[in-house]
Amino acid sequence: MILDRLQSQLAFIREVDRLKCIFRQTILMDKSRRENDAEHSWHLALMAVLLAEHAREPIDVARVVRMVLIHDLVEIDAGDTFCYDEEGAKDKAEREERAAERIFGMLPEDQAAEFRALWDEFEAMDTPESRFAASLDRLQPLMLNAYTHGAGWRRHGIHADQVIERNAHIRDGSQALYEESIRLIENAVAQGDLKPAR
Amino acid sequence: MILDRLQSQLAFIREVDRLKCIFRQTILMDKSRRENDAEHSWHLALMAVLLAEHAREPIDVARVVRMVLIHDLVEIDAGDTFCYDEEGAKDKAEREERAAERIFGMLPEDQAAEFRALWDEFEAMDTPESRFAASLDRLQPLMLNAYTHGAGWRRHGIHADQVIERNAHIRDGSQALYEESIRLIENAVAQGDLKPAR
Repeated sequence: MILDRLQSQLAFIREVDRLKCIFRQTILMDKSRRENDAEHSWHLALMAVLLAEHAREPIDVARVVRMVLIHDLVEIDAGDTFCYDEEGAKDKAEREERAAERIFGMLPEDQAAEFRALWDEFEAMDTPESRFAASLDRLQPLMLNAYTHGAGWRRHGIHADQVIERNAHIRDGSQALYEESIRLIENAVAQGDLKPAR
Repeated sequence: MILDRLQSQLAFIREVDRLKCIFRQTILMDKSRRENDAEHSWHLALMAVLLAEHAREPIDVARVVRMVLIHDLVEIDAGDTFCYDEEGAKDKAEREERAAERIFGMLPEDQAAEFRALWDEFEAMDTPESRFAASLDRLQPLMLNAYTHGAGWRRHGIHADQVIERNAHIRDGSQALYEESIRLIENAVAQGDLKPAR
């Protein structure tokens, strides 16, 4: 019984290796290539530990860390939907719902329920932890864009108003990080790395 | 003052993006390429959350997670030293010590001290948390090797006795994971994926 449990956990651990091959639209700081979801999730987890003091509300940091570690696992099946892709956004929820069923469903029942609840919480953004996690999930790609002279934005012809709208959520998680995001966006427009608001 | 603190934290967060470009000797499950340290660290963090129940001693899971998130940051400067590279092992400690000084030193003093202490603890393997973290750090590449028909082992002509010696530490962190590691090694030898013990 315990062996079955361990084997389910290890099968899940093997399966999620695929997250390392789900590539995002953001470019690494050294501009060498696109970032993948596993690296992105690691970066967010480290940011959660380091930046927790800037959260708008008191948070359970360990829960934020767990949340960001698993927040993109559904993309193993559903793929990464570019945040400015209106077409892809239409069936995103349905695709990700099916993925959550299958992927978390590989785990022993208690852990499947725990991870599913964490992912639902992340998606709903209705707790202090999920609001802070969402702030990090917005700020990290914004930083990658800002410090690569808008490499990701340029490729898709993104305008400042789209970035501002996308990143408005940062404010719900952290005032300090929100102010940083505005600073980065304004700098990017001033330097010609991001097209002005339409 | 708070702004300076945030700017130091953000500079560190930008700097550690380089971990995504430190490549290891292990090959991803899909055999497409070598794994990098950021992905590896994410995988260990998720394993810590999922496998904590198998730890030999009671552990603070959140501290294990923090430890594995930062355990390879020194490799940004020191590079990845292949675990069977006896030449590289000679000055590994010195190279990593200098790296820890520089990289953790970018953080505000309290966080620099916290991360440095976590890294020292990981290296010393003298607490239940660091012993469990070390088990995960051994098991994860072993799994990648085992499930890619020994891709990493084959490339370097590794023998079973080297793998057994390298992975003996797993037992200090978890009996169940140690037994799994032995099972994987025995299977690999039986399948011809790993050269027999010399």
